[in-house]
Amino acid sequence: MSVITKLDTPAMNRSQITSINVELFNVPLDEVLNDAKHGDHTHFELILCTITCADGTQGVGYTYTGGKGGRAIYSLLNDELTPFLLGKDASCITHLWEEMQYHLHYIGRGGLVSFAISAVDIALWDIHCKVLKQPLWKVAGGCSDRVNCYAGGIDLNFSTEKLLSNIQGYLDNGFQAVKIKVGKEDYREDVARVAAVRNLIGPDATFMVDANYSLTVNKAIKFAQAIEQYDITWFEEPTIPDDYAGFAHIADKINIPLAMGENLHTVYEFNQAIAQAKLGFLQPDASNIGGITGWLAVATMAYANNLPVCSHGMHELHVSLMASQPNAGYLEVHSFPIDRYTTHPLKLENGKAVAPSTPGVGVEFKSELLTPYLVKHS
Amino acid sequence: MSVITKLDTPAMNRSQITSINVELFNVPLDEVLNDAKHGDHTHFELILCTITCADGTQGVGYTYTGGKGGRAIYSLLNDELTPFLLGKDASCITHLWEEMQYHLHYIGRGGLVSFAISAVDIALWDIHCKVLKQPLWKVAGGCSDRVNCYAGGIDLNFSTEKLLSNIQGYLDNGFQAVKIKVGKEDYREDVARVAAVRNLIGPDATFMVDANYSLTVNKAIKFAQAIEQYDITWFEEPTIPDDYAGFAHIADKINIPLAMGENLHTVYEFNQAIAQAKLGFLQPDASNIGGITGWLAVATMAYANNLPVCSHGMHELHVSLMASQPNAGYLEVHSFPIDRYTTHPLKLENGKAVAPSTPGVGVEFKSELLTPYLVKHS
Repeated sequence: MSVITKLDTPAMNRSQITSINVELFNVPLDEVLNDAKHGDHTHFELILCTITCADGTQGVGYTYTGGKGGRAIYSLLNDELTPFLLGKDASCITHLWEEMQYHLHYIGRGGLVSFAISAVDIALWDIHCKVLKQPLWKVAGGCSDRVNCYAGGIDLNFSTEKLLSNIQGYLDNGFQAVKIKVGKEDYREDVARVAAVRNLIGPDATFMVDANYSLTVNKAIKFAQAIEQYDITWFEEPTIPDDYAGFAHIADKINIPLAMGENLHTVYEFNQAIAQAKLGFLQPDASNIGGITGWLAVATMAYANNLPVCSHGMHELHVSLMASQPNAGYLEVHSFPIDRYTTHPLKLENGKAVAPSTPGVGVEFKSELLTPYLVKHS
Repeated sequence: MSVITKLDTPAMNRSQITSINVELFNVPLDEVLNDAKHGDHTHFELILCTITCADGTQGVGYTYTGGKGGRAIYSLLNDELTPFLLGKDASCITHLWEEMQYHLHYIGRGGLVSFAISAVDIALWDIHCKVLKQPLWKVAGGCSDRVNCYAGGIDLNFSTEKLLSNIQGYLDNGFQAVKIKVGKEDYREDVARVAAVRNLIGPDATFMVDANYSLTVNKAIKFAQAIEQYDITWFEEPTIPDDYAGFAHIADKINIPLAMGENLHTVYEFNQAIAQAKLGFLQPDASNIGGITGWLAVATMAYANNLPVCSHGMHELHVSLMASQPNAGYLEVHSFPIDRYTTHPLKLENGKAVAPSTPGVGVEFKSELLTPYLVKHS
């Protein structure tokens, strides 16, 4: 990995940040994946941020997108945050988190800026855990090294036949919980797919649905009432994430708990959602809620509000965070296979995901696998 | 202006988008300007987006920042929105506005994405007004071509002497309303500055203060109570924009109306703020609320909630929007002199700002003045 910028000060603290390297990859998916609002996914973008300290300790952080915005995130990391961070003390994680928020506040308050801050924050935690010689799940709370998980399909474009064989594949791989996408033009088609999946997985498996905020409030209520009989653990993003009152109205009318989080990018947005949306599960994503610092803040808010914390995406990292928390719900094992490009692809034991025991955040990328997809680097 | 991409279809609609050109400028300020949270400003970034239609009609939109994030906005416009927009019908403004929101939703929901969408939307409105051969103030509502305005100083770093001579300059230039920054370490210093300014401008001039969200709720209350005697029209961003309940508590305890808007980047954020923060004035900024479409939406929400709509920044554009609205409050004449680089620098008559009467949004840049500051172009 090339070192782009060197800072040379006479009395250098061991944890002073001396270089930051940013890389953008556009990684193809094996097949086209589709949901109700984002349409077709053919690639995911992976943005790595490698931070090196004066004593040589190196931390790797990252974020990802569904295929758009990677170059803008690269710019925020390379053009705005790198000059801001060089020379600062990598061990001041929460201080730097706050400083980055305010450094980019005018163009921030969540949104895309949260993705960039996340990549930096994860790299700082990687350094922190390496210095402590402990795995993330211990440093973040140490509750356990394993956690309940589910396979999250992005499968709205799959025929029912393909949907079922995909779900069967999850079961064959040891999953005891699955989620499918909903949001077809005709909601009765969704109901039929839900019925078919429940029939396949049997009464004991855990089963969730996700509409990717595609439905009106009334359509969400109608649909949810029609699938209540299939024992659904949560109904994710029935309508737009901003309509907290709409979420609350849906929650009042149905007997399935609601879930959201992947589209909330600040602790304040979670604060509002918790207070108003009558959620049953919170699903922060460390890649866009401000990294591990942001994710843990939301986990604490969930705890204080008697809610399980779950996760969205990047399961190879979230497995350690989820395992560390006493109020952990279900880890999403996401359909973007980021862990295929790491030294520790996710491991399941008796249906539970197992957090890596290596010092650091537990995500080490294999550069030889990623290099073919490199778009830009600093 | 160079045309970067040409689309060649046989049966081309006159309003089909055939090319988009993006330019980023880093424009130096005459002197360092400072506020309580963003620190020193030495430059502003200006990002222009020029859209050309099949019939040759050209619209220019733009956004700006206080010096950070311009390259990321450039990337969103150049790498994400340009390929999405080429070939689409420029006359479908609200449809494209909605489509852009969802095209970038995963990395969006406000934040930086709203800046990029704003630049496109303003260009589409420029085309719209040019096709109609009408100025923006008529197309947007036609209430009047003039509006109350105030000079907004970014002056927290100025000594009291310099602050007063700066305010005197505003009065000499015909302003009848002024705003100063507050948020000094010791709030009593702010109180003394407020007293000195009121003493200078006399009892009839309109006077606002702006803390750039730097205060705690309790400190904001204490400060506001100490300056109530100086007849303050509004207290802008006393605390962080996310703390709607904190705003409401401040509003309950003081006798100065609260104002905010420059940091709210979606109509949903304004919706929440209106419902919870007990605001007296809304200050959307077309450069970051989703352009003219977003600004007009907030103006309508203000009207429906019995609130005056104001504006933040880019006065050379907002003058036309503000003039068009029946519930217009005060146009901010901002300290970033974007209009110095246009053919129509802002005009005052009897203390009121006058909207241009030329067809289009009324903002034509003089490229010979901007070229020295060009950083990047497509």
